[in-house]
Amino acid sequence: MRTEQEYLEGLRDGRVVFYRGQRVTDVTTHPSLGVGAAHTAIDFRLADDPAHRDLLLVFDLETQQTISRYFLIPRGHEDLLRRRELIETVTRAGKTTVPLVKEIGSDALFALLVVTGELGAAGKTAHERVRAFHARCRDEDLTLAVAQTDAKGDRSLRPSKQPNPDAYLRIVEERADGIVVRGAKVHTTNAIYADEMIVLPTRAMGPEDKAYAVAFAVKPNTKGVRFLAAPRGFGTTSAFDNPVSSTTRMVETLTVFDDVLVPWERVFMAGEWQIAGELAKTFVEFHRFTAVSYKTPLLELLVGMAALMADYNGITKAAHVRDKLVRLVMYLETVRGLTKAAALECQCRQSLAVPNVVYTNAAKYHFADRYHEMAKLVQDIAGGLVVTAPMEEDWQNPETRGDMERYLGGAGATAEQRLRAINLVRDITASDLGGYLELLAIHAEGSLETQKLTILMDADLTPYYDYARQLAGITG
Amino acid sequence: MRTEQEYLEGLRDGRVVFYRGQRVTDVTTHPSLGVGAAHTAIDFRLADDPAHRDLLLVFDLETQQTISRYFLIPRGHEDLLRRRELIETVTRAGKTTVPLVKEIGSDALFALLVVTGELGAAGKTAHERVRAFHARCRDEDLTLAVAQTDAKGDRSLRPSKQPNPDAYLRIVEERADGIVVRGAKVHTTNAIYADEMIVLPTRAMGPEDKAYAVAFAVKPNTKGVRFLAAPRGFGTTSAFDNPVSSTTRMVETLTVFDDVLVPWERVFMAGEWQIAGELAKTFVEFHRFTAVSYKTPLLELLVGMAALMADYNGITKAAHVRDKLVRLVMYLETVRGLTKAAALECQCRQSLAVPNVVYTNAAKYHFADRYHEMAKLVQDIAGGLVVTAPMEEDWQNPETRGDMERYLGGAGATAEQRLRAINLVRDITASDLGGYLELLAIHAEGSLETQKLTILMDADLTPYYDYARQLAGITG
Amino acid sequence: MRTEQEYLEGLRDGRVVFYRGQRVTDVTTHPSLGVGAAHTAIDFRLADDPAHRDLLLVFDLETQQTISRYFLIPRGHEDLLRRRELIETVTRAGKTTVPLVKEIGSDALFALLVVTGELGAAGKTAHERVRAFHARCRDEDLTLAVAQTDAKGDRSLRPSKQPNPDAYLRIVEERADGIVVRGAKVHTTNAIYADEMIVLPTRAMGPEDKAYAVAFAVKPNTKGVRFLAAPRGFGTTSAFDNPVSSTTRMVETLTVFDDVLVPWERVFMAGEWQIAGELAKTFVEFHRFTAVSYKTPLLELLVGMAALMADYNGITKAAHVRDKLVRLVMYLETVRGLTKAAALECQCRQSLAVPNVVYTNAAKYHFADRYHEMAKLVQDIAGGLVVTAPMEEDWQNPETRGDMERYLGGAGATAEQRLRAINLVRDITASDLGGYLELLAIHAEGSLETQKLTILMDADLTPYYDYARQLAGITG
Amino acid sequence: MRTEQEYLEGLRDGRVVFYRGQRVTDVTTHPSLGVGAAHTAIDFRLADDPAHRDLLLVFDLETQQTISRYFLIPRGHEDLLRRRELIETVTRAGKTTVPLVKEIGSDALFALLVVTGELGAAGKTAHERVRAFHARCRDEDLTLAVAQTDAKGDRSLRPSKQPNPDAYLRIVEERADGIVVRGAKVHTTNAIYADEMIVLPTRAMGPEDKAYAVAFAVKPNTKGVRFLAAPRGFGTTSAFDNPVSSTTRMVETLTVFDDVLVPWERVFMAGEWQIAGELAKTFVEFHRFTAVSYKTPLLELLVGMAALMADYNGITKAAHVRDKLVRLVMYLETVRGLTKAAALECQCRQSLAVPNVVYTNAAKYHFADRYHEMAKLVQDIAGGLVVTAPMEEDWQNPETRGDMERYLGGAGATAEQRLRAINLVRDITASDLGGYLELLAIHAEGSLETQKLTILMDADLTPYYDYARQLAGITG
Repeated sequence: MRTEQEYLEGLRDGRVVFYRGQRVTDVTTHPSLGVGAAHTAIDFRLADDPAHRDLLLVFDLETQQTISRYFLIPRGHEDLLRRRELIETVTRAGKTTVPLVKEIGSDALFALLVVTGELGAAGKTAHERVRAFHARCRDEDLTLAVAQTDAKGDRSLRPSKQPNPDAYLRIVEERADGIVVRGAKVHTTNAIYADEMIVLPTRAMGPEDKAYAVAFAVKPNTKGVRFLAAPRGFGTTSAFDNPVSSTTRMVETLTVFDDVLVPWERVFMAGEWQIAGELAKTFVEFHRFTAVSYKTPLLELLVGMAALMADYNGITKAAHVRDKLVRLVMYLETVRGLTKAAALECQCRQSLAVPNVVYTNAAKYHFADRYHEMAKLVQDIAGGLVVTAPMEEDWQNPETRGDMERYLGGAGATAEQRLRAINLVRDITASDLGGYLELLAIHAEGSLETQKLTILMDADLTPYYDYARQLAGITG
Repeated sequence: MRTEQEYLEGLRDGRVVFYRGQRVTDVTTHPSLGVGAAHTAIDFRLADDPAHRDLLLVFDLETQQTISRYFLIPRGHEDLLRRRELIETVTRAGKTTVPLVKEIGSDALFALLVVTGELGAAGKTAHERVRAFHARCRDEDLTLAVAQTDAKGDRSLRPSKQPNPDAYLRIVEERADGIVVRGAKVHTTNAIYADEMIVLPTRAMGPEDKAYAVAFAVKPNTKGVRFLAAPRGFGTTSAFDNPVSSTTRMVETLTVFDDVLVPWERVFMAGEWQIAGELAKTFVEFHRFTAVSYKTPLLELLVGMAALMADYNGITKAAHVRDKLVRLVMYLETVRGLTKAAALECQCRQSLAVPNVVYTNAAKYHFADRYHEMAKLVQDIAGGLVVTAPMEEDWQNPETRGDMERYLGGAGATAEQRLRAINLVRDITASDLGGYLELLAIHAEGSLETQKLTILMDADLTPYYDYARQLAGITG
Repeated sequence: MRTEQEYLEGLRDGRVVFYRGQRVTDVTTHPSLGVGAAHTAIDFRLADDPAHRDLLLVFDLETQQTISRYFLIPRGHEDLLRRRELIETVTRAGKTTVPLVKEIGSDALFALLVVTGELGAAGKTAHERVRAFHARCRDEDLTLAVAQTDAKGDRSLRPSKQPNPDAYLRIVEERADGIVVRGAKVHTTNAIYADEMIVLPTRAMGPEDKAYAVAFAVKPNTKGVRFLAAPRGFGTTSAFDNPVSSTTRMVETLTVFDDVLVPWERVFMAGEWQIAGELAKTFVEFHRFTAVSYKTPLLELLVGMAALMADYNGITKAAHVRDKLVRLVMYLETVRGLTKAAALECQCRQSLAVPNVVYTNAAKYHFADRYHEMAKLVQDIAGGLVVTAPMEEDWQNPETRGDMERYLGGAGATAEQRLRAINLVRDITASDLGGYLELLAIHAEGSLETQKLTILMDADLTPYYDYARQLAGITG
Repeated sequence: MRTEQEYLEGLRDGRVVFYRGQRVTDVTTHPSLGVGAAHTAIDFRLADDPAHRDLLLVFDLETQQTISRYFLIPRGHEDLLRRRELIETVTRAGKTTVPLVKEIGSDALFALLVVTGELGAAGKTAHERVRAFHARCRDEDLTLAVAQTDAKGDRSLRPSKQPNPDAYLRIVEERADGIVVRGAKVHTTNAIYADEMIVLPTRAMGPEDKAYAVAFAVKPNTKGVRFLAAPRGFGTTSAFDNPVSSTTRMVETLTVFDDVLVPWERVFMAGEWQIAGELAKTFVEFHRFTAVSYKTPLLELLVGMAALMADYNGITKAAHVRDKLVRLVMYLETVRGLTKAAALECQCRQSLAVPNVVYTNAAKYHFADRYHEMAKLVQDIAGGLVVTAPMEEDWQNPETRGDMERYLGGAGATAEQRLRAINLVRDITASDLGGYLELLAIHAEGSLETQKLTILMDADLTPYYDYARQLAGITG
């Protein structure tokens, strides 16, 4: 297994990253982006930590070696339950921020394995490339990002009908040594911290969209690849005022492919428009399971902040507060319970355990649909000081600290304790980070509508339709 | 195992049942109550049906005999998953109406086993009585009802403080041969169809409520026991107009105990007020798991009726209809998924697998809180004809049938098909039965508030509270 | 003004009414339908009651005579506010059941006046016919029903594309003396109790639907008109068990037009497909205002029942009960407040005050969308006895009454008081009537989707769109 | 009337303001706080603008002079409707940020006039002081802030029971020349931009809380008054990235009263604990009406942003988008409609029109309870780019602008237009400002629970209770 230092060292490879109008030469030491690099390295730190090693690493019976558990191909519900626990545990250790440099990549690898495998002979070459790539990632303990969502332009039009032909990433040339691709992917998470980047289609394609049916892997420092990192909310530096956002960071990029050459051995799909939709969907099925696994620490924190603020405000026994606490608990446990049910009721494709689609999407929808409401409950209990209290600079000023100490304490809590709790609530629910988390809730891993659509596609209503006919006494 | 006929024969034992102002001498042949008896007998019919026998019966390793699976003491999550499937399957076969003559009784037995067992030496006698009673029920394949909810009177007062001392059932005399009890239980389901009736306390008690801390078993034909059966909505007889309510029936009674003598070997608790709450709660933990297991066929029917009516009305492709269908599916699967999670995450007490309390209650709350909303979605899709269409008598009248045939057909559906579908929707969601189901949703197995309360009692918030403190950087 | 007796006398005119498989010769004396006739006569009783006369009657400045206020053409927001009060008051006196024999008819007349008036010269003849018809209704103090919703068949197809050409009512012949119409209308409310019936189109039409663009008035006893009255839930006769449904009744019919000749002076639209949609919509605009005016007494009753049951159960001070009460109050007052806002912000068309479309539809949607939830809150407070208590026949039986008296009383309430309150809750929320009210909530006066559609059609979003552009600094 | 310059000049009076650890000597020129001063001056600019003068100013018949309409004592529903329009219009002009330097102050004056007036002879002195103070504010066209919410400490304890006796502001000394007060108020809005500050009690008091029953007016530069301004989210300076938060600002302070002497003529209540609750409540009644009046421009903006982003994303015709748009419109209009109903149904106290309490609180609750959900709908339509797009610095960098131009345009929208729209959505819903607005929604003008409590206190349920009894046939 690689060490944290080896991982970080690998990121200094000349990749082209822009941030706040500047080219960044080293993402691991940059004052702002470096925070994210230190955070993603948690995977390597925990694998090295005796308390977590058994979860992070696993002896792979198939290859007879110890590997990072992320790359373990799930063969049954027990593997999926452990994968869920892995993702939850690492995210909890990461202050509710998932590192996402192995989770999403392995989701993509599993989907590629399944979909190319299901093609049989027609997919033999592709399947072998995927297997080889998976083996290399596993054996070299690599980190991976996934770039899926295209720029899209006018969402009412198919890729080939866009006024801008590059609105969806496409093959502009097929050469002997590979394909040349052009376009851009949005919302690429943590690619600037990954060793490899897998590119997948974002939707189903028709025959006219052939050039857009493309999947492959590239190294982030490949010629023509550029990252424009979103700077939203990265200005926080006070651990007092912003205990989470100042110390962890997910970085989203606009990832540009400016006529990038991808060698054939890295190409997994090139023109097979018939399977683009299936590949996109299968990836999402794995990835939504990852999503609902990494959401729970954030929801645990919502419960914890509510309980803490109720205590500090002296309102723990108020009936409406108790009601809000139990709603938060039910929210957390409904997401977690459905995730476990998704593992328990997995289905096998190509000897690979795929989490149950309906349960996974129901969990994801439940999480996403109610997230804002749950943040509201926390804010409701925390009180208006969350946005009206003076902050660290005033706390450090002797002229004002006395007033803060005298007037901002709570029930059995000093002003400092209460302010720290308040600041956490603001950082998580009412700040640039809070806004990011709200958007993430409803757009990451697909929008609310796509989760509903997926359920409707996968749920077989026929038995229920027939049951209704039978009970109604309908014949014919 | 007993046959259906043996079971029904056993109910003709002189039990005192009143219905619509009349004494009923035989509940199995009475024109209205007989419908319920025929329905509850489904347990025996299915046990005799090769298609279901493996689910209904089980070879009990502990006693080395084949028994009704209801009585199998669950030793792990697999047993609970099978029990869930058992209850779901029988209820589905019973047109969404659970027979409830073995489910609830075994819930009570399990709870009594656990709670008396946990008392150790202090509960030795009681525990042995419970074990003996369970063994007899199992070996003789008996049916059981449970009477728990007291009349209550003024709910803001404890049992011993009620103006009416009999508002909660109590011991009025302890004799050498047993105890004499007086009071009444409400909402007793299907006791008139059971061989035995277990009586449990409904709440926690204080020392002054000692006389009210009582649990025992009685035969329904015991002297002093009277049943007043609620006649709500039992007038339906047309299978065309009321396809479900005319053929299945749950009967709730006001069950009066008019100085009933209970021999000591049937007494499980008499004055041990300290454990009354624990017994009530443990029973409810098992019983809510039963509840969320038997609810799913009704929810399947909601989905089916919505899909059927959408089809018959020609609106299957409308976006809002699809949205409603997926909400119904998510509702069903959230309840079912959380029930499975409750089994998966069971905890052991006295070597007995108790379903996870938080998941069970979250499932029950999810079901109950949204039931009315989901019925609304079905009604929304079905249309106003559900309550404005002419019914069977007009359908049978040659003067009017032609108009109905000409004008009440739908998209690819004859008038008869559409009317039958409409009638099913009315019967299930917009009728006396529909009202009963709404009340059942929010009151059976405890109200919405009690589910929230239970979760708050069982969920340990400390780890989340500490996590919030840790992330906020709070010390001291 | 006519008397109650004159009104009822007028209904004995040979109209063809079928009910439960039988032809009914006199709707005013029929044991079941007569209940509805007695109820609708409330308009005449109240007009004769000094306590209500000033509201029911009005001196019409335009005709210089005292008329029923229902027929007063609203000229400004004050007229609409009084009309709202009129409808609310009569419905409250009618035990929450609107008589609907003048409300809906005047809504139709107002819409016909507006739409034919807006046609100018092209609509001159039609407009004069409408004016004359309105004048006669007003001067003769007539009652009116409205038949609008067609049978529809396959809702995904336009009228002229239906497999059954009569799925929408249509003109089958134009003659010198009038038009001949064929088809059927569903959900026609109280037409069997009306002197006249106005027929309106149910939707917008295209040129190919010309034959379906028809509006007219007929007397209910016209040759070829047949009524099939829906019998749903009309079996209740005990005022103890069913205090509302046994004494008031709205009757919905399938109204068949079997080649009915309508003289030209009664024809208001015949082929003008271009205005069919506008007529349907304008009627609905008036009628939804009527709807939200007559809903409030039912919502007042929900509040009252919840308060009463909370009191009888001894739970008035429980925090969750208080929370439910305030939700019920907000629900009631939001509907009522938005109705008043709809009057206040009316717009003038043809010198006629039309209630504000957005506020009216927002009120109606708010009412309809939350009705089931609010019924749930009442049931939650009332408790399970609503469906499990013995009923009147047991109360009258001396063998069982004692048990009921002893065990079914509440906090400061006798068993009789509590049972009567419980029965009211069941009658209104958990019975055949309760189901009818649920369907009525979401389907009468248009479904939830149509209310959203109407708002989107009428609300002008341009100012808000421009405001967003302006604040964003967008030019071009 | 004063000019903008005169107003700003008046703020340079030596008031003690701290911000981000520094003493601020001039709030009108400070780089960050100056933005707020420029914003609050909008009242003066609009009064000087011919397009708005008639709304901002009014000829006061009582004093026979032209005054700022804010100070006009409302005598009937027309005055309240105009006041609503005034507040809405000014806030709309202020980019959805209410200036709040006259609105809240006049609310307090109205409440003081009513409550001291109702005391009759006992309140004569206080009433005269209030009248004189109101006259001065009106005649000198002053700006006013209100400080109401105390620090509170342990919210489960009354003021006099707090471990910290200063947790609620109190009188520490009564002198011949006035009272000396000590304590702190939180959430004081824009006091640093006001000429006067009115201090009111925050809750009902008991006799032991006498010292805490205090109301008065002070100038912000009074000796002992200190302001600690909350710095939350004030770092934004790019009008491209943060079009609203970079140009408008509400400033909340922790307002410390360090033994401040208040001359008697400025004291309105000092020890009259019996009326503290009534004063707090009456102020809130006026102020919640102000609140629901100033919320509508923000809600208009939510509608506008959703419509704009739907357009730019090419999804305007998607059914789920239309559904979300209509929900936003209904939300806006329900709040606005209920506000109008509150004006229409005002009640007179001391010849002063008080907005209807139930409608006002229902409007406020409707606004607050659904705000997060509505922000979610906007985010849902806007898409993930709201938080993942590069921002102004990258837009200004020639190396990256080309990529942004090529890939971030939408349906008929340039990249710049779409980015500006996206940035507006982020600024309003998913940023430090967005978090502030969420907290403001549920805590400003009282929490959700207080609105429910107020409704329950004010709504008379007796008529509904009696109606239920009557319909149930209950006597005795």
